[in-house]
Amino acid sequence: MASPDSIKLADYLFTRLRQLGVQSIFGVPGDYNLRLLDYVVPAGLHWVGNCNELNAAYAADGYARINGLSALITTFGVGELSASNGISGAYCERSPVVHIVGTPPRPHQDSRALMHHTFADGEYKIFATMAKHITAAQTELRDAATAPGRIDWVLQQAIIHSRPVYIELPDDMPSTLVSTENLKTPIKVPSAPSSATEPELVNRILERIYSAKQPAIYVDGESKALKIVDQLDALIKCTQWPTWTSGFGKGLVNEDLPSVYGLYNAGFGEKAEKDYYESADLILTFGPHFSDTNSMFNAAIPRTAAAITFKHDIIQVGDEVYRDSSVSNVLKQVLSALDQSRLVKPSAPGKRVVTLDDIKPSDPIAQKNFYRLVNPLFREGDIVLTETGTASYGGAAFKLPPKSTLFRAVTYLSIGFMLPATLGATLAQHEMNKTTGQKNQSILIIGDGSLQMTAQEISVMIKQKLDIVIIIINNEGYTIERVIHGRKQHYNDIPFWRHTQALSYFGADEEHVKKNTFTAKTCGELQDILKNENVVNGSGVRLIEVAMEREDVEGPLLMVLNKQIAEEKQQSA
Amino acid sequence: MASPDSIKLADYLFTRLRQLGVQSIFGVPGDYNLRLLDYVVPAGLHWVGNCNELNAAYAADGYARINGLSALITTFGVGELSASNGISGAYCERSPVVHIVGTPPRPHQDSRALMHHTFADGEYKIFATMAKHITAAQTELRDAATAPGRIDWVLQQAIIHSRPVYIELPDDMPSTLVSTENLKTPIKVPSAPSSATEPELVNRILERIYSAKQPAIYVDGESKALKIVDQLDALIKCTQWPTWTSGFGKGLVNEDLPSVYGLYNAGFGEKAEKDYYESADLILTFGPHFSDTNSMFNAAIPRTAAAITFKHDIIQVGDEVYRDSSVSNVLKQVLSALDQSRLVKPSAPGKRVVTLDDIKPSDPIAQKNFYRLVNPLFREGDIVLTETGTASYGGAAFKLPPKSTLFRAVTYLSIGFMLPATLGATLAQHEMNKTTGQKNQSILIIGDGSLQMTAQEISVMIKQKLDIVIIIINNEGYTIERVIHGRKQHYNDIPFWRHTQALSYFGADEEHVKKNTFTAKTCGELQDILKNENVVNGSGVRLIEVAMEREDVEGPLLMVLNKQIAEEKQQSA
Repeated sequence: MASPDSIKLADYLFTRLRQLGVQSIFGVPGDYNLRLLDYVVPAGLHWVGNCNELNAAYAADGYARINGLSALITTFGVGELSASNGISGAYCERSPVVHIVGTPPRPHQDSRALMHHTFADGEYKIFATMAKHITAAQTELRDAATAPGRIDWVLQQAIIHSRPVYIELPDDMPSTLVSTENLKTPIKVPSAPSSATEPELVNRILERIYSAKQPAIYVDGESKALKIVDQLDALIKCTQWPTWTSGFGKGLVNEDLPSVYGLYNAGFGEKAEKDYYESADLILTFGPHFSDTNSMFNAAIPRTAAAITFKHDIIQVGDEVYRDSSVSNVLKQVLSALDQSRLVKPSAPGKRVVTLDDIKPSDPIAQKNFYRLVNPLFREGDIVLTETGTASYGGAAFKLPPKSTLFRAVTYLSIGFMLPATLGATLAQHEMNKTTGQKNQSILIIGDGSLQMTAQEISVMIKQKLDIVIIIINNEGYTIERVIHGRKQHYNDIPFWRHTQALSYFGADEEHVKKNTFTAKTCGELQDILKNENVVNGSGVRLIEVAMEREDVEGPLLMVLNKQIAEEKQQSA
Repeated sequence: MASPDSIKLADYLFTRLRQLGVQSIFGVPGDYNLRLLDYVVPAGLHWVGNCNELNAAYAADGYARINGLSALITTFGVGELSASNGISGAYCERSPVVHIVGTPPRPHQDSRALMHHTFADGEYKIFATMAKHITAAQTELRDAATAPGRIDWVLQQAIIHSRPVYIELPDDMPSTLVSTENLKTPIKVPSAPSSATEPELVNRILERIYSAKQPAIYVDGESKALKIVDQLDALIKCTQWPTWTSGFGKGLVNEDLPSVYGLYNAGFGEKAEKDYYESADLILTFGPHFSDTNSMFNAAIPRTAAAITFKHDIIQVGDEVYRDSSVSNVLKQVLSALDQSRLVKPSAPGKRVVTLDDIKPSDPIAQKNFYRLVNPLFREGDIVLTETGTASYGGAAFKLPPKSTLFRAVTYLSIGFMLPATLGATLAQHEMNKTTGQKNQSILIIGDGSLQMTAQEISVMIKQKLDIVIIIINNEGYTIERVIHGRKQHYNDIPFWRHTQALSYFGADEEHVKKNTFTAKTCGELQDILKNENVVNGSGVRLIEVAMEREDVEGPLLMVLNKQIAEEKQQSA
């Protein structure tokens, strides 16, 4: 019996998650987590049952990227390993997912019982050992005395590192009573005290800012985990310096601001932008997440001499590394000291203007026109998601409305991620909008190869009544792989699916299906669909299949494709 | 340029796999394995592109269980982790899958380049480290001189342990020339020399056999990996002693033999069988794989005093353990020495007779009648697959035709496994039948919850033109979980799907769909479907949806359900 001083362990855990803003939990039931699941709904949390654990992990990742924290419950072994690739992706791209694994009851573990979901060898630590490689912190809740402290610590780690953490919760523990003492204090992330070198650092940064003749700002995706997005907005507005983002950083800055150019495209974009960026004598670089795919094959990585780089663990001015300072604290001091009158007003490159003038209604839909046609559908606060592949490259060119969010291939690039991530992100968005009364939708653009990885999660989107427009690029296979290698090889083919039957198969109301399933082959057809009231202001899941050519690519991908074609010619000559 | 003394690494690897009987390879393309995939078809291998990597791993596991070895190709990180739960299951249940991972080119690894599919931290060994926990052996193919030896060694390990192995193959290695020297000798598993204690051991076994008054034989599933199935057939025919199997062992012995009772059901089967088994003074136990789920909640594990147990690493007579002997060698000596005239002819329990007499056509389909109705569909050489859940419990009662194979939940119990495993197993069966001219089909019985995990692989079954009957038990959710806990809880619900639209959505010819999609609610309807020529002698994928009640279970599961209901009553009283 619970007294005022005690609470059941499951209730403690779920109370903490709710305090940290989690409203929904993702996962799949399994016989080692059922007793834990009993507490989800009574704790005021919404349970999202996913079709499988990988999809659940992807969805939890998507939810965390919007909400700031998410939770996933799977069962021991079979469940957690299925989720592992999703957790690994969240680790890579700094999405804080709390992975709670229902493990066998303590008596089974202690007696080395030969149970299902094990290797029938008495070992119970194999999967937890594997999880250490892809989570920032781990804990096991084996006794009532230490459980509250362990929960608090591991949740704090998730927030500090903005990465997944791992909790083993034996099946006989959910109803165990633990102390309520800790609950009196909310979980807080301690702010780092100022380091001894901080005043010197702030001065050096200010000096570099004042002496800069051709400055730029580069915003990368880990800025979000650094919790400096509002400060960056202030910095951009104050300096009015030319600002670019990486793919991961896109959407973190307001693209309506006159000095914001959007994604830095290096050699594949405007020459004037490239010239400016490359000869800049100062690039303030925030939340860097450098990788070949996120940094334009490294061409976007600022020269060390020009860069002041603000990272999770260090701030670097040229060659010099400063440790033990909080980026947010330093930035706060820089901003408050900043004397606007001492800032250079550089002659910035002109901004490119996007028009639809060259597109005729009879044109076939292609990479070169598709993204421009879709762009007007996005509205303030929407979430736009472009799956790894041609969609993600195309999404680089989107002009995003204020407060909208873009999910794009960054570094982990696990195809199949984006569809369940759309489920999770949209749910988080809808939960937030409940308090504001705002209405938003998510727009997912996904290739047919990626779709097949995790398609069943469409049924959960439908069940959860989420407002999502899914645009399927049907180019008959893995076009992104064709471009890289084996453009005529059968291994880049995929099975034929009838995409327009998806909503019906996955359980949508037949009336809804009829009104919300579309196909387009020409630009005119697509434009008509994008004006359809059900697409613009509708609800539930809407599905648009667009046809494109098998080898239709643009930009960097076109260069890669042409290289392959040239090699083929050379070999056959 | 390849000389007679040299061969490209990829060709070497695929030549070895072909020599070991592999005809098809499963997997998903990714940019670190595309150059390897170029060699698959030219090597005379069939490429099966799966919808995702977990499905590919499950399919490879199914293929290996029929064929004796299988191969799976995934890409680094995202691909291999998605497959990890399938590899882990193959490890648990001793299925030899060769997992080949296309890793980033050596120059990228050596320079710690910040590449996609990594954590953008220069680390390239994280995923290989994780794989060590779920594979029997691992190797990396980094240089031409050692690669052939490493390949031979790791493939040998897969066969010896009958478990998955892991190969890292950097993307710049497939075309590297290696020596052909090893290829002159096939890969062989060395037979263990007789140990010093072996004559004593054989004598002790024979003594126990001759002195037994109430003997039994218990065949468990690891007998297959021990490669003693033919010897067991001889032993059973020679002794005519009452023979039972575990769920994992079911299908390894000919159930047409008069002394074979099928699965040992302990307290849930015939009392006479239980009485005999429990008071047996000798139980020859082969290939034990003891676990709660495979050993009737441990009730099937023979008493140590009565048992002689033949395992992978030891042979145990009562309390005494003999090491370093080959089970097959010892069994050969026992069989050749066996004097049939000295064997007891025990008074064996009568065999239960299964009839359909109590079933009326208007009866709703239920667990208690369904399996008896389906059983006549199975023919010699077919593969019958019952997914974890009620289907697997029900499948325990099947009377299997000779040479047929049963896949059943054993210990790992990863729901979602059985559908892709059906794909792999059926492909292996069809490949074998090509040489004999025999025609077989596979019959998969699967619940609606499990189906949703991996349903997209139906499209690959269709693309591969496999002869498979899928029977979906639609009981509106995870009935197996409802029975264990939370029978009225919403977390055991699943999204609604229109199962009869599956074949069309997943790309089957519309004419085929019409003729091969069925639904049944009553026993009479099901019996009619099971007589339909397209089901009995058809081809391609056929789909039958049968409706059952949400809490309809039998046998051990009914006991568990009744316990839950009793607890509920107690709590509400």
